[in-house]
Amino acid sequence: MNVQRCLDILREIKDVAFATVDENGFPQIRIIDVMIVENEKLYFCTARGKDFYHQIITNGQVAITGMNKEFQMVRLNGKAEKLEENRKWIDRIFEENPSMNAVYPDESRYVLEAFCIEKGDVEFFDLGKEPIVRESFTLGNTMAKEAGFLITDSCIHCGKCERICPQKCIIDCKINQKHCLHCGLCAEECPVNAIIKRGK
Amino acid sequence: MNVQRCLDILREIKDVAFATVDENGFPQIRIIDVMIVENEKLYFCTARGKDFYHQIITNGQVAITGMNKEFQMVRLNGKAEKLEENRKWIDRIFEENPSMNAVYPDESRYVLEAFCIEKGDVEFFDLGKEPIVRESFTLGNTMAKEAGFLITDSCIHCGKCERICPQKCIIDCKINQKHCLHCGLCAEECPVNAIIKRGK
Repeated sequence: MNVQRCLDILREIKDVAFATVDENGFPQIRIIDVMIVENEKLYFCTARGKDFYHQIITNGQVAITGMNKEFQMVRLNGKAEKLEENRKWIDRIFEENPSMNAVYPDESRYVLEAFCIEKGDVEFFDLGKEPIVRESFTLGNTMAKEAGFLITDSCIHCGKCERICPQKCIIDCKINQKHCLHCGLCAEECPVNAIIKRGK
Repeated sequence: MNVQRCLDILREIKDVAFATVDENGFPQIRIIDVMIVENEKLYFCTARGKDFYHQIITNGQVAITGMNKEFQMVRLNGKAEKLEENRKWIDRIFEENPSMNAVYPDESRYVLEAFCIEKGDVEFFDLGKEPIVRESFTLGNTMAKEAGFLITDSCIHCGKCERICPQKCIIDCKINQKHCLHCGLCAEECPVNAIIKRGK
């Protein structure tokens, strides 16, 4: 798995969910088509009349997710940048996604604005495997944020977390991050509170 | 279409996208299973170790969306309430969704907390139809928020908006809200600025 393949999965799913934050600080969500994926960049568009457009223009921060039929899920958190040469990009998007002509015929396509995401964090999950598999990547030159849990030096090696982990991903007092659900049961049940949340 | 059918569509899709806002005011998204839908309420669960759990506990506001194979899309904005009698609800969820036992075997299921959404706004879209169809509903006793555009009395009946509307949903200087994309092209092109955004 790599970051380009993660973006390709989103393009294959095509109708993915985009989250933004509105002017009241509330989450907003809708299904948006992934129009182009190339060179580790993801392209989409929306109409200038939509609340979604105003939320991206105000803030730019979006979160995207989709899951395919094989239960492979991708999450992308990043900043959407409005593209210059909008007409060129909209024409290219319609060329590669001809069904758009039924929704925005003729010149009406230019009420759409094209955006690109080239920086962000990407997470890949394979929920069809037992135990589940997760991998993290960065898009562009961003810093990867650590998540999940860590067993610290306070560990007394009692073995309780190994026994209770639902995915059996703790071995020799070490969490295999690749298979961890981030459920937190180990941290809750550790008798000496040796397990902490990462990246906080 | 009605609000119960909208929730049923989300349950049928099952793996839907949930958006929240994190401690930095950024949008967050992930795929979550709709576990139970009944009596115009939607039930889901998540583990206490997850960022998603902490975001719901802090704020409660979530936005949900999913689209089925017939291109019917549902959006739900609402407040998630933590359920009392958590063990009873988790047991019921596992009974109705037995595949959960592979992810959280035995007692580990109780690291999950059950939530219910019973108040909010619901939007239904049929993107498989031409023109597209949209309908709005409320869940519980919430006020419906108007969206989209309105042609005001300043209209000079020039007919320009009728000609340029991509979905041809303006007739006799009136927008048929049921088929409107909210793209805003009519408002942009109106020569006397007679068309305004609703609900602002």
